[in-house]
Amino acid sequence: MAEAIRHDKTVRQLRLLSDALDSGRLGPVRRMVNTLSAAEIGNLLESLPPAKRSVVWGLVDPEDDGEVLVHVGDEVRESLIAEMDEDELVAAVEDLDIDDLADLVEDLPDAVIDEVLKSMDRENRERLEQVLSYDEDTAGRLMNPEVVTVRADTTVDVVLRYLRLRGELPDNTDHLYVVNKRHQLMGWVALQDLVTHESGTPVNQLIDDELESIHVEDSSEEVARRFSDNDWVSAPVVDDGNVLLGRITIDDVVDIIRDQAEHQALSAAGLDEDEDLFSPVSRAFRRRLVWLGVNLLTAFLAASVVDRFEASIEKLTALAVLMPIIAGMGGNAGTQVLTLMVRGIALGQIASSNVPTLVWKEVRVAVINGLILGVLLGLVVLIWFHNPGLAAVIAVALTANFTFAALGGVFVPVTLKRFGFDPALAGGVILTTITDTLGFLTFLGLATLILLR
Amino acid sequence: MAEAIRHDKTVRQLRLLSDALDSGRLGPVRRMVNTLSAAEIGNLLESLPPAKRSVVWGLVDPEDDGEVLVHVGDEVRESLIAEMDEDELVAAVEDLDIDDLADLVEDLPDAVIDEVLKSMDRENRERLEQVLSYDEDTAGRLMNPEVVTVRADTTVDVVLRYLRLRGELPDNTDHLYVVNKRHQLMGWVALQDLVTHESGTPVNQLIDDELESIHVEDSSEEVARRFSDNDWVSAPVVDDGNVLLGRITIDDVVDIIRDQAEHQALSAAGLDEDEDLFSPVSRAFRRRLVWLGVNLLTAFLAASVVDRFEASIEKLTALAVLMPIIAGMGGNAGTQVLTLMVRGIALGQIASSNVPTLVWKEVRVAVINGLILGVLLGLVVLIWFHNPGLAAVIAVALTANFTFAALGGVFVPVTLKRFGFDPALAGGVILTTITDTLGFLTFLGLATLILLR
Repeated sequence: MAEAIRHDKTVRQLRLLSDALDSGRLGPVRRMVNTLSAAEIGNLLESLPPAKRSVVWGLVDPEDDGEVLVHVGDEVRESLIAEMDEDELVAAVEDLDIDDLADLVEDLPDAVIDEVLKSMDRENRERLEQVLSYDEDTAGRLMNPEVVTVRADTTVDVVLRYLRLRGELPDNTDHLYVVNKRHQLMGWVALQDLVTHESGTPVNQLIDDELESIHVEDSSEEVARRFSDNDWVSAPVVDDGNVLLGRITIDDVVDIIRDQAEHQALSAAGLDEDEDLFSPVSRAFRRRLVWLGVNLLTAFLAASVVDRFEASIEKLTALAVLMPIIAGMGGNAGTQVLTLMVRGIALGQIASSNVPTLVWKEVRVAVINGLILGVLLGLVVLIWFHNPGLAAVIAVALTANFTFAALGGVFVPVTLKRFGFDPALAGGVILTTITDTLGFLTFLGLATLILLR
Repeated sequence: MAEAIRHDKTVRQLRLLSDALDSGRLGPVRRMVNTLSAAEIGNLLESLPPAKRSVVWGLVDPEDDGEVLVHVGDEVRESLIAEMDEDELVAAVEDLDIDDLADLVEDLPDAVIDEVLKSMDRENRERLEQVLSYDEDTAGRLMNPEVVTVRADTTVDVVLRYLRLRGELPDNTDHLYVVNKRHQLMGWVALQDLVTHESGTPVNQLIDDELESIHVEDSSEEVARRFSDNDWVSAPVVDDGNVLLGRITIDDVVDIIRDQAEHQALSAAGLDEDEDLFSPVSRAFRRRLVWLGVNLLTAFLAASVVDRFEASIEKLTALAVLMPIIAGMGGNAGTQVLTLMVRGIALGQIASSNVPTLVWKEVRVAVINGLILGVLLGLVVLIWFHNPGLAAVIAVALTANFTFAALGGVFVPVTLKRFGFDPALAGGVILTTITDTLGFLTFLGLATLILLR
């Protein structure tokens, strides 16, 4: 088990800053904030309630404003942008990299976008328009069109001279791309190789022959998977004709990897990755209401099953005492299976070929645990209610509901996925509807048939 | 909402491979497998049932065996190692980087470790021993002691000559470290700067003055946070005396970031990040049993509350029909709050200074949703059971339980964290115990007081 996650330094900063804010000493707050990186400032702003957030945002060095906006979730970003006037916004975003600017564009007022476009040179404006022409969540939207290219028919010496002339390289440049006259990608040369080879070495001797590239329409999840599978720091993006369009760097991919992994936990509770801890109540309640409303509907379904057995419950009230145990434990057992499956699907590990093996494994686990905990539960019921028949019924019902839970835990997410729904979002609601209704039905049904006829 | 996660390519590979395996044509399988990266092979092995996994493992190019072992979860790794004999294992791991080898060591048989140590030169053996001397989940264990260092009192030209003489650099080398005679870290020079500056430029003009480093005893979570906050590709690791001990690279950190983010979803179901989809049943059932057993205990607690109201249920069986709705909806509402809080804690966004604001926000959201859904639920109950008193009681009970859920959703994880427990693991069980028991108590208690006296 991974140990509890510790971020003592971040929490300490938050406490210090909060104390300083409470005491009204804004000087120390400003100094503290401006020693942090943009991502750290973003994290800090996300952890502050609206009033304090607003004060601290006013103290951030205007030079960092753009980078901070890039590093916060959509909801917090909106609240920060709402506090800036047009001039401030233009100043904040006009010096951002193209990929970061593209990421922000849809949250900016139109007037600001116009202003920023006007301030750009033609080359950058065209680059931005190109990036924006691709769908969100694709490689095209993530890429930075600024790339350093070289020709194959030259030497290390010539390349180094070119780089010295060119000056500063884009962030995280670890490779130079080798292109032909039509700007098609022929390969790449690592900076590492450039500095470890004699100046006369021909570039084409240094070209990596296992070239892989990302297609501009690949999904951002595919991009994240390939970066983490190949340990890339950056990767070239090409179109259908293998023309080099830009490059994606690991710093942007790390955020996708984190969002992707967080998605499972948040979706299971009907939440969004971009949810602000301090969302305005008027907004938070509405979003939660939808998910709770769906759950209420499914709860009615389960209640209507119980309603069928009113007469049985009146005769034997122990049924009412025990029935939540059967339903709840089924839900717990099913959630374990579902959670494993949803992760497996996210990692691309589930295909129709391995589903039968998974079902068979999970059903066996369910039956074994159902029998063990069923006998235990039966013994407790025997001591509690002195009713051997009831003890036997509850043991069987628990085992049966664990089995339904295992089947549901495997088939619900697989089916959702097959029909294009998100198993992380809808899986839990459907699964607990199954374990609740079948759990009540089995337990109350068996009890009625065996004990009350 | 993030769109459904797509890994079509991976799933397609899995299907092709599975078909080829079924048909017994191992040639195509071998070719297919050996075009993949080690991480991709690892992912593939994790998605295969034991029998097929074993066949495919036998087809992996022995040269890749070591890297594949590094890229799979602990449980799958054990199963793969169990199938190799000593010689194969020694051959697989002896050429690994020190940090990867350190990661594997505890899963290897002693005889293999001895053999590997014998095959190493003294320098590498000492480096490995040094890495192993640090606790698991610390920077010391993640670092690779192989670093390239330069002196400040030299020029670009001299450094390039040194690098050419030295030859190949360690993977993902983006900086050279500047150290003094006592090997203390004085700064770093980016390869990017080295190739863009004239050969006569003194190195000390290129040294980054905003040097940050990682302390060898920092936790791996802290390392992950700093990499993602600072967009690092690699970072130097130092001891108390600022002596340079090694470096950590982003490829190893990406795995931690993913594990960390997955931790929340898996722990909430009592699962481990290293759980194998195809764990042997004998192993899987035992691990799940513990968590289900804990849940059974808490279910008894809730049942004992219901037991107190047997007489009321006998008089008004509608109570039995409706009570699971109150408990279940409370659990759902609480889980939403808990999930947000657990993520906030993991990101270091929760401190005592912002808890009051969070509680106040969540309680308001809970009361609003409780009233809306409570009135709705009351109307349904009125139509269903023709009992206005019961309708009023259930509306009040739902609102009350949503409020308990909000309070529990904030205070349970904060309290667990304060006492050093993992809120992701224990939070859900405790929270639903609260919403079950208080939900039953409020609903059945109010009904008894108001309707049945």
